[in-house]
Amino acid sequence: MNNTISLAAQQVELTHAIDTVWVALCGALIFQMEGGFALLEAGFVRSKNAVSIIAKVMIDIMFGGIAFYVVGFGIAYGTGLFDFGINLGDLGLGLTISNKLFWFIQMGFAIAAISIVSGGVAERMKMWAYAIYVTIFCAFLYPIVAHWVWNPQGWFALKGFNDFAGSAAVHAMGGFAALAGAIVLGPRIGKYNEDGSINAIPGHNLTLSAVGAFLLWFGWFGFNPGSTLAAVGKWDLIGSVATNTFLASAMGGISTMLYTFLRYKKVDITMVINGVLAGLVAVTAGCNVVSPESALVIGFVAGILVDVAVVLIDKMQIDDPVGAIAVHGINGFFGTVAVGLFSEKNGLFTTGQSEQLMIQLMGVGIISIFSFSATFAIFKLLKSTIGIRLSYKAESAGIDAVEFGVESYTTFE
Amino acid sequence: MNNTISLAAQQVELTHAIDTVWVALCGALIFQMEGGFALLEAGFVRSKNAVSIIAKVMIDIMFGGIAFYVVGFGIAYGTGLFDFGINLGDLGLGLTISNKLFWFIQMGFAIAAISIVSGGVAERMKMWAYAIYVTIFCAFLYPIVAHWVWNPQGWFALKGFNDFAGSAAVHAMGGFAALAGAIVLGPRIGKYNEDGSINAIPGHNLTLSAVGAFLLWFGWFGFNPGSTLAAVGKWDLIGSVATNTFLASAMGGISTMLYTFLRYKKVDITMVINGVLAGLVAVTAGCNVVSPESALVIGFVAGILVDVAVVLIDKMQIDDPVGAIAVHGINGFFGTVAVGLFSEKNGLFTTGQSEQLMIQLMGVGIISIFSFSATFAIFKLLKSTIGIRLSYKAESAGIDAVEFGVESYTTFE
Amino acid sequence: MNNTISLAAQQVELTHAIDTVWVALCGALIFQMEGGFALLEAGFVRSKNAVSIIAKVMIDIMFGGIAFYVVGFGIAYGTGLFDFGINLGDLGLGLTISNKLFWFIQMGFAIAAISIVSGGVAERMKMWAYAIYVTIFCAFLYPIVAHWVWNPQGWFALKGFNDFAGSAAVHAMGGFAALAGAIVLGPRIGKYNEDGSINAIPGHNLTLSAVGAFLLWFGWFGFNPGSTLAAVGKWDLIGSVATNTFLASAMGGISTMLYTFLRYKKVDITMVINGVLAGLVAVTAGCNVVSPESALVIGFVAGILVDVAVVLIDKMQIDDPVGAIAVHGINGFFGTVAVGLFSEKNGLFTTGQSEQLMIQLMGVGIISIFSFSATFAIFKLLKSTIGIRLSYKAESAGIDAVEFGVESYTTFE
Repeated sequence: MNNTISLAAQQVELTHAIDTVWVALCGALIFQMEGGFALLEAGFVRSKNAVSIIAKVMIDIMFGGIAFYVVGFGIAYGTGLFDFGINLGDLGLGLTISNKLFWFIQMGFAIAAISIVSGGVAERMKMWAYAIYVTIFCAFLYPIVAHWVWNPQGWFALKGFNDFAGSAAVHAMGGFAALAGAIVLGPRIGKYNEDGSINAIPGHNLTLSAVGAFLLWFGWFGFNPGSTLAAVGKWDLIGSVATNTFLASAMGGISTMLYTFLRYKKVDITMVINGVLAGLVAVTAGCNVVSPESALVIGFVAGILVDVAVVLIDKMQIDDPVGAIAVHGINGFFGTVAVGLFSEKNGLFTTGQSEQLMIQLMGVGIISIFSFSATFAIFKLLKSTIGIRLSYKAESAGIDAVEFGVESYTTFE
Repeated sequence: MNNTISLAAQQVELTHAIDTVWVALCGALIFQMEGGFALLEAGFVRSKNAVSIIAKVMIDIMFGGIAFYVVGFGIAYGTGLFDFGINLGDLGLGLTISNKLFWFIQMGFAIAAISIVSGGVAERMKMWAYAIYVTIFCAFLYPIVAHWVWNPQGWFALKGFNDFAGSAAVHAMGGFAALAGAIVLGPRIGKYNEDGSINAIPGHNLTLSAVGAFLLWFGWFGFNPGSTLAAVGKWDLIGSVATNTFLASAMGGISTMLYTFLRYKKVDITMVINGVLAGLVAVTAGCNVVSPESALVIGFVAGILVDVAVVLIDKMQIDDPVGAIAVHGINGFFGTVAVGLFSEKNGLFTTGQSEQLMIQLMGVGIISIFSFSATFAIFKLLKSTIGIRLSYKAESAGIDAVEFGVESYTTFE
Repeated sequence: MNNTISLAAQQVELTHAIDTVWVALCGALIFQMEGGFALLEAGFVRSKNAVSIIAKVMIDIMFGGIAFYVVGFGIAYGTGLFDFGINLGDLGLGLTISNKLFWFIQMGFAIAAISIVSGGVAERMKMWAYAIYVTIFCAFLYPIVAHWVWNPQGWFALKGFNDFAGSAAVHAMGGFAALAGAIVLGPRIGKYNEDGSINAIPGHNLTLSAVGAFLLWFGWFGFNPGSTLAAVGKWDLIGSVATNTFLASAMGGISTMLYTFLRYKKVDITMVINGVLAGLVAVTAGCNVVSPESALVIGFVAGILVDVAVVLIDKMQIDDPVGAIAVHGINGFFGTVAVGLFSEKNGLFTTGQSEQLMIQLMGVGIISIFSFSATFAIFKLLKSTIGIRLSYKAESAGIDAVEFGVESYTTFE
């Protein structure tokens, strides 16, 4: 009997160890996506701003990570506003990993969300103003939403909102913040003409963007499967999530290829990269509850949606240099809603039920409005105080020269 | 007694969880190799075609992955041609992971195989023709071979063919397909002169190729060790495989360094990268059954072989822009044969037995001929129908401009 | 009873499997840092030497890895000098992983240490002389220190020296070797003027350096947490180590941002990257025994220290093209000492005890002196025999053209 008890105790220890290995490595993969964001965005902007956008993603990591450590985590999963650092008590989440490791993986989600914004405000925002916004976002805005969605006591969680790895809490959150930021900042110099026509400003280095895209794609196989937060008891789910994640990404890229080819007679590779990302974003909410066939459909729709959205946003003269709003905002919204359409348990298309769809619409709607409004207000406040927009001269010369005193590429010697 | 039973049941659950963590993360590492292929190849071609080759690797992932989902997997591991998607029954493979996760890792091997071909046909092939070939390759060609080699009911498997992680099924398969593709397409404009002399066409960005090479090298530590498909009961093997994989890669690079230095008085870094990859390819078949000392020898030979093969293939006026045939075809063949020479169980050099050697020769010979012939036929068919080769004008201007309407690098602003 | 025994035996097997998955994947992450070193350094040097520095990191991997296999591992963990290859007996380390897998992860540490040196001697050292030094370093120098620190029979280990993942054994070791190498080689042509003034030689490609930095940052989450060498019984520790590692890196970057902004009115992004790395280096020794708050402080100090050190070293006319001495040498030293200040068990600041501090100072002092002296002697010996410095002509033209016969970037066609 004693032996049996000690064997049972050892099995608990083994469970802790397995789940820790899983989450620690998925957390590393998610962290690694920051390199993906930085390089994707750097390649999509002009050479004169490449260093500055990498710096902004580093600010996302550094200021965002510390803010999420000091304040944010307590709001999202602790006992509230004055719960600094990492509470060592039971968080009531049924975790088999340590609170610190849980913080580590959650921090990866927080800095992913803010990194979406860095793309939307690229090539024209002041660095320190951005750093202040990052700190507020990761200390308060994101944690409030994470609390609603993922804390079992959260408002949405109690209603049965399904946002497995964060189409709403991470991507719509980041994408609608990017929208507000882009609107308040205004377009880059020379982007729109007085007659309403649009000047394309092509990225300076598509192979660099490809490096970023592949790192992001890779990291997503930590982002989605890692959201199980455990392997014991969830091993079957991990396989489903990985498969759905892949299928949606592939179809997102294919539908964009077809769409851009049919519409423009040329395949737009920048958009194909965005189509893959759109598929990934859209399947992120429902990868735990949809069938592979539904994942294919979700990805296909996401790939078209991103193309249409990019054009529409541009027509509205909202200048989003890297397509962050279309990829993360629009498809984060769509992906969250898609759970209500395609969930094997209670999707409208799969079961005829509409209750989950309503919950999904409400949840992602509130998150999008919250993120947009809060960011709009903060940007307005920053604008009227320390200023958010670079001077005409600085923007023309390039942020790298003005704020960093360097060039990303020296004359090749 | 009840307790003991439930403890035993829980141990089964733990085993599933451990093996799932292992395969899911190795699968992610293997997937990540696609970025390696794309960037390695992009750096090795001219700037005017850099975007197009990245697009081709994305086609490998997207079209190849979907084809392997819809049709290929059923052929390789299911009940046959009309076994669409992922069969949920027992595949008879003794797996401790879910069928979907098994699909995910196998998909990584399928798209690795086709990505080899993208290099051999670089800088001159039409995108849509390539996409059709990719679909056929991943739906039928590769799955047929995977069935022969890795399905326990497969023809070669029943004979005891040892191709642990795919020197034959992935690398010779891809390399000999690349050979057929390169022959049918013909050389790039300006590659060979009328007097038979050769014009070197250097890659445009060796640091980008280095990014790709490091990603591939990294991913190989998922590719080979992950082929155990389990950690429980295989933990000792995982250590051997990782060690052999490293040793062969290092020796492949060293022997290439020495060879190119002695022969050309200069170390050819492009070839050293290929030497490392050649060592990796060659040890892939036998990393589970050879000693570390044999791995060193296999890597050393592979590093020389790739140098010799690149020159010979070029002399035969077969234009292989990135060395795909020499790295994957020739060394995939050699590595498969090397199992019959160096296996600790039944290698000719290690035990004096020759039976395994014959099986290995037969297996890789058939795979190489099959891959070459099928690809040759499909390329001929595509050539006589929709066409496979870009127009003279398009090839001169660059695929990026013609098929994608972009340049990889804009004038640096 | 029989059942209980077999259950217990199976638990041992499961433990082996879990720990193997953990170490194999952390080992892959650590290996992947070599790409980080190569690309970081390549971006920080001039275009004409970019290929050569990547080649040098490949030499670190290839020659260093083989040397550590044949000779080094036996010295560090085996029975001594003539213990070639991987001893199959019990190493007395209480490992639950195979000796080969233990070799694989230790090899990652060995080649990380030598890769630090490649940066310090960049842009002026002969390739073959460097290859000889690499071989000696990984066969003898590093293994001797690893024996002192991590072999339970080692001199420092017996005294209670705490260098969890190698601030001393890897980073101070590599950094002080780089210092000796840079001194013996002398500065690059044109770096210092006769009047003592300094010419900045900016790197050619900061986005490439950023790729490298992100790969290194990612890999550190294998480097530090993986140093537990097991997950069973250590899962709580893994979470602490990951959290401390992140916090120190983020604070290292932040303090550098603030320091360079306050001092130069511009944020120096090159230095911010180095600040992040400095934070990582500094927390590496103590990430297992310090609190998160201490990790924040350690990172903050490291970020300032690296800025000050870079300037001082340059003023002393020691030419360190990528900042290797300041990042790894100075902060490896500081981080090792910081254990004696901040350890929760026996740190001076945390407990008032000073004994651990003395042990840490002694240990890292001896390692630094040993590494510096041995490297100085070997470089002097190599200088007076085969020569270590490129000719004036070769250095002016660039190593890529002279030793490799290539250019990293061809005229963009």
